[in-house]
Amino acid sequence: MPTLFRKVKDVKNFIRDIKNSAGNAHSIGLVPTMGYLHEGHMELIKKSKLQNEITVVSIYVNPLQFGPEEDYQRYPRDLERDLAMCEEAGVDVVFAPTDEEMYPEKPKVRIEVEGISDVLEGAFRPGHFSGVALVVLKLLNIVHPDRAYFGEKDFQQLKLIQRLVKDLSYPVEIVPVATVRDKDGLALSSRNTYLKENERESALSIYRSFLIAQKLFKAGNTNANDLKQAIREYISKHPHVKKIDYVEIVDEDFNIKEGEVSQGDRILVAVWIGNTRLIDNWRLSYEEV
Amino acid sequence: MPTLFRKVKDVKNFIRDIKNSAGNAHSIGLVPTMGYLHEGHMELIKKSKLQNEITVVSIYVNPLQFGPEEDYQRYPRDLERDLAMCEEAGVDVVFAPTDEEMYPEKPKVRIEVEGISDVLEGAFRPGHFSGVALVVLKLLNIVHPDRAYFGEKDFQQLKLIQRLVKDLSYPVEIVPVATVRDKDGLALSSRNTYLKENERESALSIYRSFLIAQKLFKAGNTNANDLKQAIREYISKHPHVKKIDYVEIVDEDFNIKEGEVSQGDRILVAVWIGNTRLIDNWRLSYEEV
Repeated sequence: MPTLFRKVKDVKNFIRDIKNSAGNAHSIGLVPTMGYLHEGHMELIKKSKLQNEITVVSIYVNPLQFGPEEDYQRYPRDLERDLAMCEEAGVDVVFAPTDEEMYPEKPKVRIEVEGISDVLEGAFRPGHFSGVALVVLKLLNIVHPDRAYFGEKDFQQLKLIQRLVKDLSYPVEIVPVATVRDKDGLALSSRNTYLKENERESALSIYRSFLIAQKLFKAGNTNANDLKQAIREYISKHPHVKKIDYVEIVDEDFNIKEGEVSQGDRILVAVWIGNTRLIDNWRLSYEEV
Repeated sequence: MPTLFRKVKDVKNFIRDIKNSAGNAHSIGLVPTMGYLHEGHMELIKKSKLQNEITVVSIYVNPLQFGPEEDYQRYPRDLERDLAMCEEAGVDVVFAPTDEEMYPEKPKVRIEVEGISDVLEGAFRPGHFSGVALVVLKLLNIVHPDRAYFGEKDFQQLKLIQRLVKDLSYPVEIVPVATVRDKDGLALSSRNTYLKENERESALSIYRSFLIAQKLFKAGNTNANDLKQAIREYISKHPHVKKIDYVEIVDEDFNIKEGEVSQGDRILVAVWIGNTRLIDNWRLSYEEV
């Protein structure tokens, strides 16, 4: 079994002892999660285990990154199942703090990254990225990892963290890990458990719309509006699609593209399937899928 | 001579080597400064040397914490003199980075602390505290001190840093150090060099107004308005006093006091003497001065 810590103090002491242990310094990999682990998380863990001597998985459903109308209460939780999966994956440490441990007082700090916090996910979920930034910086300060692992599935979050770490000179390497998809193309997400079977069928339209856009792009259509339009049209003709929050294309610096797109640009979408809000993204490329 | 580092990479390597050196872990004290050192800084250094094996002084005039109309260009700089003072004080390491080292790109992160960043100094100097927060977090991430030393002279800054460190779980102890005053009571500040001799005479009104307020308080007048009024009246009758930006009283959690004040509350003022903006503060107490 991985060693389970519930208190900030305890995991800090454990890390300090490792770092101070005589001989070679151990490298530490951190995989921050909100639990209810799936194969996407397992990829993060696998990569951390390849690159580090110690892998720490944090499991914490961070209330600060949920809006008042969002699914904080409903978000799936199952620590026992998560622990079993961590054991299976060979995780060394699980840090699963209580709210009281993480926020003994309501935090007063707000952290924004210009051009990231305020657009797309940030615009639809005000305060979300400040909550993400706060909890990730806390985890970095508590665990002091050499590397931290983030899925490309939450692409805007990844960009936010990369920029935070750069601007604040954090001594950590942020390692992105490619999105894991089910056989049918649905990007893995703990929120997929919300989907009823017929909703899940509609949710596949997201992945398929990417393939359509990708095909157009490879055929020479590099017009951002054409690609976005094709995606919107394809997705919206499916049942249970209640609303498309956005379909946008960004470049590697997260500038929103108008006009011509190019290889490496990324399509980002947020779609409501019934009462479930899904996000996904796709990197435009001339290569085969 | 202290070891002088100009590059982030070099000071990071130095610290890493110290932390990894076999045997007992060395504790590191950081004294962040903008240089042009004076006896106030020397007190910070003295305290750091008492509490740590290694004392690092950073010297960096951080452009991000100056407004466009402020004295960034004019701010006094003298690295050689600073190095000599650091040697005299037994400082181990001076970290004096270039702008290129600190900000290879314009940072996009903004950091606010609710109730601190936006009032008093924060209201008169928009963006100031985000710049302070950014540079201090960078320095903490680069130097990884066990303790960091801040003067009470910049009281609001001290409160900001304390809150940042708490909310972000930074593994550092913030150590406040009492304001150092000249024999005549003027709080030491690198900006005092701007003052002409007759302006300096007027600047003493700030300290003397604190003594007046303190006397009223000890005599039983605990009305915030009375104390603030007495301070304003006393200061403003002096020549060269161009403007009083604010006179306020805050409690230990930095709430602005209206009505009754009590022991431990702090008077904060910002005053323009000619073209020089001075800040100072005073803790209300029943004890003798």
